[in-house]
Amino acid sequence: MFHVKQLKKGCDKMIYLDNAATSFPKPEEVYKAVDECFRVFGANPGRSGHKLALQAGRAIFNTREVICELFNIDNPMQIIFTSNATDSLNLAIKGILKKGDHVITSSMEHNSVLRPIKTLEEKGIENTIIKCDENGFIDVTEVEKSIRNNTRLIVMTHASNVTGTIMPIEEVGKIAKKYGVFFLVDAAQTAGVYDIDVKKMNIDLLAFPGHKGLMGPQGTGGLYIREGLNLKQMKEGGTGSKSESLLQPEIIPDKFESGTPNTPGIVGLGAGIKFILDKGIENIRKHEEELTDYMLKKLAEIKKVKVYGPQDAKKQASVISLNIGDLDSSEVSYALDQVFNIAVRSGLHCAPLAHKTIGTFEQGTVRFSIGYFNTKEDIDKAVEAIRKICKKTY
Amino acid sequence: MFHVKQLKKGCDKMIYLDNAATSFPKPEEVYKAVDECFRVFGANPGRSGHKLALQAGRAIFNTREVICELFNIDNPMQIIFTSNATDSLNLAIKGILKKGDHVITSSMEHNSVLRPIKTLEEKGIENTIIKCDENGFIDVTEVEKSIRNNTRLIVMTHASNVTGTIMPIEEVGKIAKKYGVFFLVDAAQTAGVYDIDVKKMNIDLLAFPGHKGLMGPQGTGGLYIREGLNLKQMKEGGTGSKSESLLQPEIIPDKFESGTPNTPGIVGLGAGIKFILDKGIENIRKHEEELTDYMLKKLAEIKKVKVYGPQDAKKQASVISLNIGDLDSSEVSYALDQVFNIAVRSGLHCAPLAHKTIGTFEQGTVRFSIGYFNTKEDIDKAVEAIRKICKKTY
Repeated sequence: MFHVKQLKKGCDKMIYLDNAATSFPKPEEVYKAVDECFRVFGANPGRSGHKLALQAGRAIFNTREVICELFNIDNPMQIIFTSNATDSLNLAIKGILKKGDHVITSSMEHNSVLRPIKTLEEKGIENTIIKCDENGFIDVTEVEKSIRNNTRLIVMTHASNVTGTIMPIEEVGKIAKKYGVFFLVDAAQTAGVYDIDVKKMNIDLLAFPGHKGLMGPQGTGGLYIREGLNLKQMKEGGTGSKSESLLQPEIIPDKFESGTPNTPGIVGLGAGIKFILDKGIENIRKHEEELTDYMLKKLAEIKKVKVYGPQDAKKQASVISLNIGDLDSSEVSYALDQVFNIAVRSGLHCAPLAHKTIGTFEQGTVRFSIGYFNTKEDIDKAVEAIRKICKKTY
Repeated sequence: MFHVKQLKKGCDKMIYLDNAATSFPKPEEVYKAVDECFRVFGANPGRSGHKLALQAGRAIFNTREVICELFNIDNPMQIIFTSNATDSLNLAIKGILKKGDHVITSSMEHNSVLRPIKTLEEKGIENTIIKCDENGFIDVTEVEKSIRNNTRLIVMTHASNVTGTIMPIEEVGKIAKKYGVFFLVDAAQTAGVYDIDVKKMNIDLLAFPGHKGLMGPQGTGGLYIREGLNLKQMKEGGTGSKSESLLQPEIIPDKFESGTPNTPGIVGLGAGIKFILDKGIENIRKHEEELTDYMLKKLAEIKKVKVYGPQDAKKQASVISLNIGDLDSSEVSYALDQVFNIAVRSGLHCAPLAHKTIGTFEQGTVRFSIGYFNTKEDIDKAVEAIRKICKKTY
């Protein structure tokens, strides 16, 4: 148990290692794009036909285009803008599943997948949650074995937000295709850092946040829907199209984008993705992998620290979950914040079954999540702080 | 029919009269608040416990508080942040209505009310759409007469987005209370300009956009839910609370706010509302009323112009819909934009029954919507442009 009186004034510069929650900071280009949109063409896109409205509409279309480039999507109109990945996942899961259907998922999923699926049980939609191993890996043969006659959907995270474990998306995509089952990927922890090719990976539905690896603002997210796949919408309202009809239009993306969009946010998201395309996604990944590898090696030297997940920078996203002895994870993160000015997240990370899988349901974990703007020095300071907490010498 | 060749280069300064679609520009304070949030404390609120996350969380709470002040709401936790008013209306309508229920609304509603209600017919939820008079006014006795044993909800706009007609919200609220029916008000065209007091007006549910009269960024909106009134959520996911549970928590607002919120947007919305509270909502309204009155009087002098709605600045929000002879509304707005650099909206304004009510379902209307930053000079220029279009002398 830490004593608050031990805590001293934090270091001057905060070290942000909570990029799995939201990336921070954003590239300067993102801040500027949002501000420019806001000040120069902050009209309502797709409603009115005046110059500003058209400029706003074109800017939104530009973001659709860079998303297509990033994920190898042909038709920009198959991108639905949402308010976050949770919104995307709810739309995908509830839009496709009907009474009597069966859905397969994994025990490493976030509550944004598990909670909608559990809620759908009330509607007579069955589920199989495949238990992963203690490092978060799934046995793909289990996925194939779980397929039933009424299986309509497989939902899987691309990488765990708790352990970083990268899931075998391409292999699962093949299984889905083989059995004619739809495949929804939750790219919350990978979009913008790991290669995602919806064609190569047989992804029918791709849910992604705008504000994490894609470096856009909070309040943005998206769902790619494979052409020809028809979902039920969750909301109806003004779409700026077919205004004469009292029924929601079937035109995509309008069908799923009722109401005024988050124009400045979407424009900022476009700037974030352009930044990624300019830097090269492989360079971003390489940087994060190097820092993850460096931190994992340093942590392995500290006896009291238990690291969860693959402990291999090639098999995990830049998320490192750990505990220090039997210290409560919240206490450790509190000390990191208050004494060392290091921002991390502790607890259950909205993924209860993942914690049951890795055996940390009671203790939670302290999660360090590395972003593109982190440096080796940040990792050194974080590891040094962990050492001090282990020794209680701070 | 206009000929495009007649069109010349627009004036230098655009006159924005499309504030009913989204207010533009925003107060400088809003731009600055968004940028500061973004750059200084752009963490994920309510997830992690570090300083930046707490600062983000507090900033969001501050916006809840100013919303409470504006609408006379006691408990800030009864404010749900949404992505726009459409999102709020869908949550309210679908959250409260069950199979076998009956809902009452008016013919002046936006598609964000009508389309969800029409969609719910599939689920065995009945509706009565009360036809308003040609100026958009509703006969409140019709509301009372429409109440059945199974009526659960009355939904009404505070002011029409087509004609500006202000609806008798307080009277309808009394009827709702008398019969124990829930009352949902769509404040898309009034929040931030007209007095809204949820207690005095017996409003159980108040849906509002953040980006119109409240002067916040696009991508924001809200729903007030009266304390004790339980709605079904539309989405489940991570809430940062009760992470151990696979079921959506019942805590409000968490139950309805799954996923990362639009933190910079909500902070900007708070700045917009603070701006309103500082200026005084009555001063903002007075300014808009004066300009509306001025424009209505000027328009009355032009023979070819037909103005729809009350034509009385005390009985309508600052929205003026008109037509010039039998000219197509889109052609008029195109000329306004291209020749005179005046931004308005034309067509059906996502409210088809309102156009049937006022007799403009075929022609649509040209809508001028005035905002706080418009001036008398803007109105003079708009009227002058209309005169020139009437005479085809441009």
